[in-house]
Amino acid sequence: MNETEIETALLALCEIARPQTMSRFRMPIDIDDKEADPGGFDPVTLADRGAEAAIREWLMRHYPTHGILGEEEAPVKPDAEWRWIIDPVDGTRAFISGLPTWGTLVGLMRDGEPVAGVMHQPFTDEIFLNAGGASKYLRGGIASALKTSPIEALPQATAMTTSPDIFPDHEKPLWYKMLEATRLVRYGCDCYAYAMLAAGHIEIVMESCLHVYDIAPLIPVIRGAGGIVTDWQGNPCNEGGRVLAAANKAIHEQAIELLNA
Amino acid sequence: MNETEIETALLALCEIARPQTMSRFRMPIDIDDKEADPGGFDPVTLADRGAEAAIREWLMRHYPTHGILGEEEAPVKPDAEWRWIIDPVDGTRAFISGLPTWGTLVGLMRDGEPVAGVMHQPFTDEIFLNAGGASKYLRGGIASALKTSPIEALPQATAMTTSPDIFPDHEKPLWYKMLEATRLVRYGCDCYAYAMLAAGHIEIVMESCLHVYDIAPLIPVIRGAGGIVTDWQGNPCNEGGRVLAAANKAIHEQAIELLNA
Repeated sequence: MNETEIETALLALCEIARPQTMSRFRMPIDIDDKEADPGGFDPVTLADRGAEAAIREWLMRHYPTHGILGEEEAPVKPDAEWRWIIDPVDGTRAFISGLPTWGTLVGLMRDGEPVAGVMHQPFTDEIFLNAGGASKYLRGGIASALKTSPIEALPQATAMTTSPDIFPDHEKPLWYKMLEATRLVRYGCDCYAYAMLAAGHIEIVMESCLHVYDIAPLIPVIRGAGGIVTDWQGNPCNEGGRVLAAANKAIHEQAIELLNA
Repeated sequence: MNETEIETALLALCEIARPQTMSRFRMPIDIDDKEADPGGFDPVTLADRGAEAAIREWLMRHYPTHGILGEEEAPVKPDAEWRWIIDPVDGTRAFISGLPTWGTLVGLMRDGEPVAGVMHQPFTDEIFLNAGGASKYLRGGIASALKTSPIEALPQATAMTTSPDIFPDHEKPLWYKMLEATRLVRYGCDCYAYAMLAAGHIEIVMESCLHVYDIAPLIPVIRGAGGIVTDWQGNPCNEGGRVLAAANKAIHEQAIELLNA
């Protein structure tokens, strides 16, 4: 697949997922549903299932030899050269709270390496895309380049994570080290944090316990904007786990040093 | 002032503030500015000052006998019957991080009581408004009613706060009690959290150390949608401080009981 073909596919998948998510976003609460499961919290919504099913159907029709890995259904052809990675609603908790900081993620891996990806936020009409070349931002039919922040000193950096509660207890001190070492910390956001990093507004995203579909689609978007994504030791994080995304090499080096001091 | 006149004024003020904030939102970072103040973090941006100046200029021209209280400039006529309350960019930290969860707040108080208010998020094109009657949501030229959540049991509720770090140490245990007692907690958002409460997507917002301009404009919006806003003891919070906003009376009572047990 070449860059043009990949971009066309990623944009088609955004359009296909849009009605599945948007028709369920900010709908009135059905108390019966909530009260049916009073003890726990189940983030798997109809939006999630509907969007993934629609994306899979399109992919299997257009690329029957490719593999598919999604949050909601069983993997397809896990050993295929080309494999699509789907998180139909990344940030389900933001979604059910009405916040426009969730996104639909679709990534493409070739022989296990992330080579392209897209984050789509349909309520704000924003697309953060990489089809193999430079990363792009699309809104209202206008495309512009995504470029990470030029700030190179950790004490000047803004760091984001979804919540301090995502870190297991033994990892929390490392997050608080990051909080102390940076200028500003923001919580919330899920995939939107990585999008803001790719767009140059923040310098660090630090998370833990991610799944492959939470991060693989975002890696090419960040890299194609000038950023670096690894685990907390500087190794690949294509499969999820602990993730450190940084705006540039200088910030990344200082963050890795801090986390391993 | 009657409801129509107030609504016209609030909507005019949103339009006046919009170019002042949006022209500075997500602009490329000026490293020189950031490095000029390497030690601290100054959230007062040009957007803040420009929007407040534009709002004040309009108010003083149209309502020369009214009072004005804003974040950026000295108060005007603090003893006037009608007093406008301005937070030109509530959520400056979200603003500088590129997140669309900040808002322009304008409220109207009569003899010290909040009687109307608006929250405007110009990037997402959302207005959450109360001009004295029922609260309204406006987007893309379409108006709809704002109505708080019908969920009445605290264990089913979603609670939001800007960050666990906003609470002084002696108050943190109360936030964690709330976290334990509710179904889901989300961080981030500033004024956007109150907007989501008015719109029925979440049930509780709990914050501390607020200024009058952070909360007074939002009180009528929440009340006019069916919600309740008080301090942590159930007393008025018109002047800021500790704030508890709840979707309905039942949730409010359980939250007050929890915080004072």
